[in-house]
Amino acid sequence: MPRLEAILASPFRFEVTHRDPHSKARCGRIHTPHGVIETPNFIFCATKGAIKGVAMEQVMANGAEIILSNTYHMLLQPGPDVVAAHGGLHKFLGWDGPMLTDSGGFQIFSLGHGGVANEIKGRGRANLPKTLLKITEEGALFRSYIDGSLHTLTPESSIEAQQKLGADLILVLDECTPFHSDRAYTAKSMRRSHRWEQRSLDYFRAHDDGRQALYGIVQGGIYEDLRKESGQFVAGNDFFGQAIGGSLGGTREQMHDIVEMVSRYIHPERPTHLLGIGGVADIENGVRNGIDTFDCVHPTRLARHGCALVPNDIGDEHINLKNTRFKNDLAPIDSRCNCYCCRNFSRAYIHHLFKAKETTGGLLLTLHNIAFMSQVVRNIREQIKKT
Amino acid sequence: MPRLEAILASPFRFEVTHRDPHSKARCGRIHTPHGVIETPNFIFCATKGAIKGVAMEQVMANGAEIILSNTYHMLLQPGPDVVAAHGGLHKFLGWDGPMLTDSGGFQIFSLGHGGVANEIKGRGRANLPKTLLKITEEGALFRSYIDGSLHTLTPESSIEAQQKLGADLILVLDECTPFHSDRAYTAKSMRRSHRWEQRSLDYFRAHDDGRQALYGIVQGGIYEDLRKESGQFVAGNDFFGQAIGGSLGGTREQMHDIVEMVSRYIHPERPTHLLGIGGVADIENGVRNGIDTFDCVHPTRLARHGCALVPNDIGDEHINLKNTRFKNDLAPIDSRCNCYCCRNFSRAYIHHLFKAKETTGGLLLTLHNIAFMSQVVRNIREQIKKT
Repeated sequence: MPRLEAILASPFRFEVTHRDPHSKARCGRIHTPHGVIETPNFIFCATKGAIKGVAMEQVMANGAEIILSNTYHMLLQPGPDVVAAHGGLHKFLGWDGPMLTDSGGFQIFSLGHGGVANEIKGRGRANLPKTLLKITEEGALFRSYIDGSLHTLTPESSIEAQQKLGADLILVLDECTPFHSDRAYTAKSMRRSHRWEQRSLDYFRAHDDGRQALYGIVQGGIYEDLRKESGQFVAGNDFFGQAIGGSLGGTREQMHDIVEMVSRYIHPERPTHLLGIGGVADIENGVRNGIDTFDCVHPTRLARHGCALVPNDIGDEHINLKNTRFKNDLAPIDSRCNCYCCRNFSRAYIHHLFKAKETTGGLLLTLHNIAFMSQVVRNIREQIKKT
Repeated sequence: MPRLEAILASPFRFEVTHRDPHSKARCGRIHTPHGVIETPNFIFCATKGAIKGVAMEQVMANGAEIILSNTYHMLLQPGPDVVAAHGGLHKFLGWDGPMLTDSGGFQIFSLGHGGVANEIKGRGRANLPKTLLKITEEGALFRSYIDGSLHTLTPESSIEAQQKLGADLILVLDECTPFHSDRAYTAKSMRRSHRWEQRSLDYFRAHDDGRQALYGIVQGGIYEDLRKESGQFVAGNDFFGQAIGGSLGGTREQMHDIVEMVSRYIHPERPTHLLGIGGVADIENGVRNGIDTFDCVHPTRLARHGCALVPNDIGDEHINLKNTRFKNDLAPIDSRCNCYCCRNFSRAYIHHLFKAKETTGGLLLTLHNIAFMSQVVRNIREQIKKT
């Protein structure tokens, strides 16, 4: 079986199949043990081991090709060992396609800094007590938000947990510095992150079973010299891919500028992920700057709050089905959409479900928004292939 | 097209295909414009136009063959006119198979009497204000639990609403007398129900488009002479089917006895439904007494509370997946079950979802419990066919 042998010999490979001559936009294929990720692509968030309120068979049937799960949440509940006993997250949560896990750092630091994260923490917008107790050279000491127990996350323990979880693509531990950090803190934090990334890589190599690939993370906040230093650090180490983390500024315009700036300092031939970004305009900007994958809770979160993502000719990014104007609207959300929701249900029905507090409404909109985002990246890939 | 013509000429037919020589148990086929209901069968509750937290494609894929929706809820939200504008409930809620609606009376009276109903009211176990204001010869005056507005439900308005909703099988308006009613009230109420049933039938006939069939309801509580009178009334009128309503006593044993007693006084050749009953032992008892269909919120409600219905060799009716003993249990709920949940997920995963408050847990258990109940009635049918 030469094909199986070849896959076993090198399951991970990134090939660029098309390049836009006018920008850094590109189409590619990330080969993983659980299939190929066509890029550019969008990664849907199964934060706590499920995409909220839906079944994985529906997630896949409506176009999703890759999901992520958050190591922070899986560490605390149910713990990585029970997942490992299942043979990993793929079997645990019923997803046979490509999967990514993060390091666990983002939630610890965003909770700890009391900052921007809301739903990504998995606990909604509640006013939470700070759970980050201390950041040291060794790692981060934090309290479980579930039972108050003390935990330390180190580069080594993050990689160890991610190896137990068994996602295809995994991330180094870094500190996610918030928007309000000054230059001095951002620089100090970034250099510690680099040391953590090196330790993550060393631990990963020592325990690599060939079934996972490691991404480095480029930090440096809004400071060009720091982004350059971080981009070069990550490019100079033997990571399979690279993610762009940390602060991207305070406005959408600044974010687009910083992504453009960072793109000049990263390895040009590695698969590149932009962490936590998922607006359509942001994805389009990212793609122009060579970003291959994106993730964000936004599409599935919006759905649970009654909002459907739509093309510009229907609404401004999304429509809110709870609005009374949809009460008697017999049309589907988007007659051109091929998702389960649009093929079978009217806006009036979705409106009714939210009025009646039936969670099937959130389920149907989640499937629609998954289909919508999948179509967005499919359209982007087709456009690049046409250039 | 002789077949289509035949269907159009008479879409409704009940044929008994097998009879148990030792009891009244029988297998049959209820032909409807939306397909055949193999009996005995179980009807799943889409109370407010959705089976809570799941999609209809999953409901069907996991074995359900018929669902019901509650006219009371659909009357108040979204109202029957918007459903009619969709072409009826089938199209509104995305179910192409056979469907039943009730008259709306049960919720009005169970709310009004402040009695036994809990989830079937669609508002959980909250301590609700009484909303039934008055029962007269004309009908029932009640307040909307949504906005406090006043509504009157009469036999005519119930049938009119059910004709707009367009379910295949519809029910006459009756008063559902609670367990604590004395003989005098039960008799008085039953005779008014008979007059309402007659008016329901008259209105139905005057507006029948051939796409629906009407069931009468046998009342009379726990009193044999009243049940006999009611059974004869229903049998003596031109109903397609008959349902057994009202009080069946205060214990499971008494309920089984009363079902046996009532079965002696009903039309022996009409499809017969036992309202609101869904325990496995209760279904088995009902089948022995000639009942063809059953409905209950129990299987889907249990699921949302973390409980999976199981055969006796796994647990006593159900197991509670929230229990810590399932934390590391890699087995499916039932390795012999072919549902989406049991084919793909462990008890440990379901346990985790409930611990993490992920509603996907309720979704997966709902599909399992639908598959379980569907298998229960399939097994019963096969047993009858073997006798």
